[in-house]
Amino acid sequence: MLNYRNEPEKMPSYDGVEKNYRIKVNANESTLNLPPLVEERVINRLAMLAFNRYPNEEYYSLVEQIAKNFSVDSAQILLGGGSSEIIEKVFHAFGGAGRKIVYPQPSFSMYKIYAKAADAEGIPFDLDEKFNLDVDAFIKKIREVGASLAVVCNPNNPTGNALTPAQIEKIAASIDCAFLLDEAYVEFYGQSAVNLVKKFPNLIVARTFSKAYGMAGARVGYMIAQAEVTRMINKTFMPYHMNVLTLAAADIVYQMRDEFIPRLQMTIAERKRMFERLEKLSGVEVFPSETNFILFRLDKAEELKNYLESLDIGIRYFSPNAFGLKNCLRISIGTRLENDEVFSAIKNFLEEGK
Amino acid sequence: MLNYRNEPEKMPSYDGVEKNYRIKVNANESTLNLPPLVEERVINRLAMLAFNRYPNEEYYSLVEQIAKNFSVDSAQILLGGGSSEIIEKVFHAFGGAGRKIVYPQPSFSMYKIYAKAADAEGIPFDLDEKFNLDVDAFIKKIREVGASLAVVCNPNNPTGNALTPAQIEKIAASIDCAFLLDEAYVEFYGQSAVNLVKKFPNLIVARTFSKAYGMAGARVGYMIAQAEVTRMINKTFMPYHMNVLTLAAADIVYQMRDEFIPRLQMTIAERKRMFERLEKLSGVEVFPSETNFILFRLDKAEELKNYLESLDIGIRYFSPNAFGLKNCLRISIGTRLENDEVFSAIKNFLEEGK
Repeated sequence: MLNYRNEPEKMPSYDGVEKNYRIKVNANESTLNLPPLVEERVINRLAMLAFNRYPNEEYYSLVEQIAKNFSVDSAQILLGGGSSEIIEKVFHAFGGAGRKIVYPQPSFSMYKIYAKAADAEGIPFDLDEKFNLDVDAFIKKIREVGASLAVVCNPNNPTGNALTPAQIEKIAASIDCAFLLDEAYVEFYGQSAVNLVKKFPNLIVARTFSKAYGMAGARVGYMIAQAEVTRMINKTFMPYHMNVLTLAAADIVYQMRDEFIPRLQMTIAERKRMFERLEKLSGVEVFPSETNFILFRLDKAEELKNYLESLDIGIRYFSPNAFGLKNCLRISIGTRLENDEVFSAIKNFLEEGK
Repeated sequence: MLNYRNEPEKMPSYDGVEKNYRIKVNANESTLNLPPLVEERVINRLAMLAFNRYPNEEYYSLVEQIAKNFSVDSAQILLGGGSSEIIEKVFHAFGGAGRKIVYPQPSFSMYKIYAKAADAEGIPFDLDEKFNLDVDAFIKKIREVGASLAVVCNPNNPTGNALTPAQIEKIAASIDCAFLLDEAYVEFYGQSAVNLVKKFPNLIVARTFSKAYGMAGARVGYMIAQAEVTRMINKTFMPYHMNVLTLAAADIVYQMRDEFIPRLQMTIAERKRMFERLEKLSGVEVFPSETNFILFRLDKAEELKNYLESLDIGIRYFSPNAFGLKNCLRISIGTRLENDEVFSAIKNFLEEGK
């Protein structure tokens, strides 16, 4: 009887399922909560909030801090509920019937869903067997189909590898359409392309507090682009789409972002250590990573996932239908102790043929 | 160069401008922050959160509480970032090219914008001079145009008056399309139509924590409908669209909602007192209200607004182009002291012809 738009029955669903595990390395979260000093100041700030008033200056306070850090104008920044909301709104702004949005695959599985939600046609572009992107062919594809938007996640989720800033620049310079660069994991890589925004009016960089800043629960991300682009994208956001608790917490976290440097370094060091250990396991193909996670492939991926779950360790297993990810598993980097336990469990599984 | 959807330049903007006033009665907020005991428990709960994890059970915990309160199944509840996000998503779900969405005017100014954002045609239906809705003519209009969605704000913002539950039932029973009932202010009226949901599969009731529960800053609302409807609408929401701070805070607030009864009673009593005092002023037409605000009309509305602003009192003035609202002003109910000061200022303005 009810006349729904777009046959929502056919709308694909995000396949992330969240459970509580003893060791939870399935969602690329920070394994650590906020540093204690940061958390204390966040809570003190929250205790001073006027919950009863619509958010106002808290939005601009965070925007100004971010703008200052990147030496850009405040008008070049928009905040969103995680980079998810940034991506959703950018897809919407360049979507619509007949519009085409091109993105590599495998990559963040939500791109397909956001394209569909934006009434656009999502056009995946295949990475090669080692998950490398043929940049020239990607550019050619974007031009050929007359895309309104091209998207790259860099470093890429769930593969972990990264394009160089020169490759990003080449894409930005070679296409006329909007170019969304999703830098959700860039703090673990160190080579952001934000500075290219001043040169390329088509470039939109999305960033998040969810990974490096341990704020996945607070839902805060931002985009940086030229002011004219942010002005247009801003029209797709609801009034008061950001809540004051998140804004106030993120404001403190960003002020104190140096407190996160030690754990960033820990994560990068642990990633290297885990990569080297996993690489020595026979029957396991490990993919190099510039992120806070590692992707690897082995024949008995599903069995290993089940074995780890039996130990209350949650890791990410991909559907056999997910392009290029057959028999792949992804583990987020945890603490040294967590990583040791995950590694030992994998090793046991392989040695004992469980 | 960039190929935006839908000419965002032509997208109407919400005309609410938030400033900090000494007395702020312009945005229908609760004038009081959370009750101290509630605030203390909220802050204690926030201090225990895992900011680093994506939200998970916090969403369902709040859903279950709300479902239990209304004696409905959890599958009948969805949460949103204020009722704003609920409304946005319901409009989206029943929007799309060629779809028609009918709502009374004057009413919440965002309906027009959400209809446009959903690529639908917004069709306003005029209230009469006293802001009453001709229910039969409204039903006729919805049928005539073949609407996919009808919307009623009850009690109505910014006029303050309300339809009876019998009138709401008549609308629900007489139309085949989806029927969104926006009950943002219903706690100040006392006559919700939520119990009609079990009878009418087209009825969707939107509620909010922003007004009666003093949580405008936290952005939390919910919808109640039959389970099949919530299942479909849920497909339009992003994963993790609700943040864990808001969810945890709202969970405590809802547990302790009896603590808000005294202030609800205060607001209703003050509304009555203000109505009676305003009604005695010559040259002022006051409209009856079932909400936490009062609408009134006088010839020098803009001058009065400016005079009040000069006293650092913020009230809501409507553009002369806003249908039916020429020379209208809206004041939210504040504390008794705030109301006295606002009233004295209005009286001074009228007596001294400022």
